[in-house]
Amino acid sequence: MSKYKELKQQCYEANMELNALNLVIYTFGNVSAVDRSAGVFAIKPSGVPYEALRPGDIVIVDYDHNIVEGDKRPSSDTKTHAWLYKNWEKIGGIAHSHATYSVAWAQAQRDIPIFGTTHADHLTQDIPCAEPMRDDLIAGNYEHNTGIQITDCFRERGLNYQEVPMVLIGNHGPFTWGKDAAKAVYHSKVLEEVARMAYLTLQINPQAPRLKEALIQKHYERKHGKNAYYGQ
Amino acid sequence: MSKYKELKQQCYEANMELNALNLVIYTFGNVSAVDRSAGVFAIKPSGVPYEALRPGDIVIVDYDHNIVEGDKRPSSDTKTHAWLYKNWEKIGGIAHSHATYSVAWAQAQRDIPIFGTTHADHLTQDIPCAEPMRDDLIAGNYEHNTGIQITDCFRERGLNYQEVPMVLIGNHGPFTWGKDAAKAVYHSKVLEEVARMAYLTLQINPQAPRLKEALIQKHYERKHGKNAYYGQ
Amino acid sequence: MSKYKELKQQCYEANMELNALNLVIYTFGNVSAVDRSAGVFAIKPSGVPYEALRPGDIVIVDYDHNIVEGDKRPSSDTKTHAWLYKNWEKIGGIAHSHATYSVAWAQAQRDIPIFGTTHADHLTQDIPCAEPMRDDLIAGNYEHNTGIQITDCFRERGLNYQEVPMVLIGNHGPFTWGKDAAKAVYHSKVLEEVARMAYLTLQINPQAPRLKEALIQKHYERKHGKNAYYGQ
Amino acid sequence: MSKYKELKQQCYEANMELNALNLVIYTFGNVSAVDRSAGVFAIKPSGVPYEALRPGDIVIVDYDHNIVEGDKRPSSDTKTHAWLYKNWEKIGGIAHSHATYSVAWAQAQRDIPIFGTTHADHLTQDIPCAEPMRDDLIAGNYEHNTGIQITDCFRERGLNYQEVPMVLIGNHGPFTWGKDAAKAVYHSKVLEEVARMAYLTLQINPQAPRLKEALIQKHYERKHGKNAYYGQ
Repeated sequence: MSKYKELKQQCYEANMELNALNLVIYTFGNVSAVDRSAGVFAIKPSGVPYEALRPGDIVIVDYDHNIVEGDKRPSSDTKTHAWLYKNWEKIGGIAHSHATYSVAWAQAQRDIPIFGTTHADHLTQDIPCAEPMRDDLIAGNYEHNTGIQITDCFRERGLNYQEVPMVLIGNHGPFTWGKDAAKAVYHSKVLEEVARMAYLTLQINPQAPRLKEALIQKHYERKHGKNAYYGQ
Repeated sequence: MSKYKELKQQCYEANMELNALNLVIYTFGNVSAVDRSAGVFAIKPSGVPYEALRPGDIVIVDYDHNIVEGDKRPSSDTKTHAWLYKNWEKIGGIAHSHATYSVAWAQAQRDIPIFGTTHADHLTQDIPCAEPMRDDLIAGNYEHNTGIQITDCFRERGLNYQEVPMVLIGNHGPFTWGKDAAKAVYHSKVLEEVARMAYLTLQINPQAPRLKEALIQKHYERKHGKNAYYGQ
Repeated sequence: MSKYKELKQQCYEANMELNALNLVIYTFGNVSAVDRSAGVFAIKPSGVPYEALRPGDIVIVDYDHNIVEGDKRPSSDTKTHAWLYKNWEKIGGIAHSHATYSVAWAQAQRDIPIFGTTHADHLTQDIPCAEPMRDDLIAGNYEHNTGIQITDCFRERGLNYQEVPMVLIGNHGPFTWGKDAAKAVYHSKVLEEVARMAYLTLQINPQAPRLKEALIQKHYERKHGKNAYYGQ
Repeated sequence: MSKYKELKQQCYEANMELNALNLVIYTFGNVSAVDRSAGVFAIKPSGVPYEALRPGDIVIVDYDHNIVEGDKRPSSDTKTHAWLYKNWEKIGGIAHSHATYSVAWAQAQRDIPIFGTTHADHLTQDIPCAEPMRDDLIAGNYEHNTGIQITDCFRERGLNYQEVPMVLIGNHGPFTWGKDAAKAVYHSKVLEEVARMAYLTLQINPQAPRLKEALIQKHYERKHGKNAYYGQ
């Protein structure tokens, strides 16, 4: 029996949840879950429809994307996941979807402005949209460079990946992460809902102002701050 | 056995209905139900997903938001509910959601104009959007002040809470109320539908006129007036 | 046993279909079915939620809206239905909904332009939006006058109710009809879909041209003309 | 027993899938599946609702649209399918729907620009919108001429039907195809999703740029190129 059985199961369930939440169709998207002590992560196999996916199909790879266990080819985005796990040590899971409103903002090449408390309950910044990749990087190690594109975007903008658990890749779509795979999927769903609300807000009032700073801090702090009083 | 069993059950069912009507995701939103004779109200516990919610999880608090019964921490919005029950004596239930179109109007900081009879069947006024809170009030007793923000908005605009059973909090989202918790949730659903229709109306015709006064009165009176003839 | 049992059943099923097709929420909307030989029609009772509706709740009324059979008060829109049955002899059923996109066009006070073959498969004209009612008529016999408003609109525009089985009432919503109640509901669904497509068309291209006359005639004729070859 | 039993079953399942994916309502749309060795194709009967459709209802016709087997009249669009099978030898299945966003772009008479990788994962070109038909062709052999309209559009624009498996007919709606009927339906769903994303992209940013050429090639090649590494 595989010693990665539990990790595969977690990864499997998170992938199925991405599908159940209507964030993907067909074979689009992928979720991974890392085991830091073992130095490996579990990821969806490439091109397998969610309806056909089984826990045993999940592939185990190391941070250099060598296959450790599994009969199938891992997701074509595996190198992006590997880079993020390697560079951001506190991440436990990563999700990538083609959710409609998230992709629309990515294709519009626009950051999602923070317009309300639904957004501020989860992060205090506009949701960053990384610029489309330079041509020489696309021609090179594309999926690996997508990882670099994300970490560069965060470094250049001075963003903290633990406080901003999501990004849009220009012309492509969202990546989100969290303490585990389930939380990464949660952030994909929140991002999609925030993206939809922000889209509608601008349709109703193209001059809608950003949320004021005092409210941003208040909502974030009551949920995530030292004296948080949201939740049990 | 709890003497609040029935109250908890009502509150539980109304919360589950909010979720079933797609007005919330995850742990967003909350509904409460008051027992005027006992001087207490039942409210959703903070941060509990609807899927996991049980009638026994519902928390009983008094109007000063002291816990009267329950193992869990009550909703972080409890003080807002408490203020409204204290000040508006004819309210039996309150609902707060993050429904998409309602939030979009709140984020756009716009009242929802009365454009048609679907709206007029329920209220004769534009749906008010209260201005975002002053910074000093945010920094203070935030959820308590959200209650004050709502009652101030109604006083300043000369609105009657029995005739206008809903409000948008700028940059935040909707609060609705009614004779009981089920009616409060009903008003959240009607608000969301009216918000969606008004959004689409303005997209089709940015110069769409408000509903004429004679129709506003006619539709409201046939449903709620002295000689109402709608319903059984 | 009621001699109107079958008529009530037809009416009941058509009302439930209106709800199943997501064209109404709660108690909104109503469908009726006429028995020409008996000179009566069956209609939804007023203010009864679809979930609670039973075939035995359906009310039988004559063309002067006197109750012939039934314990419940008939729909508040009964006089509108009665007027249409009285004046348009080939109608077998009528449906009224508050479907979202149909209402949005009604609130925008715009005819729905014929943009494509989905529309032309069903009618060759723009879908008419009747102007909001004059104040003196609203103050009078409102629902009766809504019927007059519809027949006046068709007379003034030279429309044939057998060829144009639908209308929008400005600021209110759609009425549709057909050879029976099921067909009336079918037209409500087609109208909603056409309303949604037309809305999106104008968002993508505000200068989108009307469908050319040759295509309008071709599509209508192949489905409804003398040499129709659509269907079995 | 019919020697076309398996072909009918494939065609039936693809038609039902079109309905399950919400790309059609009522009797709208149709899917066909070809048997190249037998020189016949199976197609949905005209005007039959999906709920009532049975495998035995599927009609077998030859490339000149003579009925080879079946009790029902074939789809009114049969001549369009026949023309495409006759002219494009590598097609195994064809789907036609009235999916909402696809129709909206067709009614807007606009090609769908390639805005992102969801699009580029499937084709490298804007999705073509063929101009509405000339009046003399409409008056003639309409459905046959719709086929010619499609092949002319591809010839004039220099498009390869194996690389661009979809087209919009101006003012009408989409036709899609693939190696078999299931793949044709898959392309209808992908088209609808791409159409929706492109619509939202332009609402958020009317100046959104096309996807850059390097990314178009990269995404298409990793899925369909000689060294493709997507999938199993």
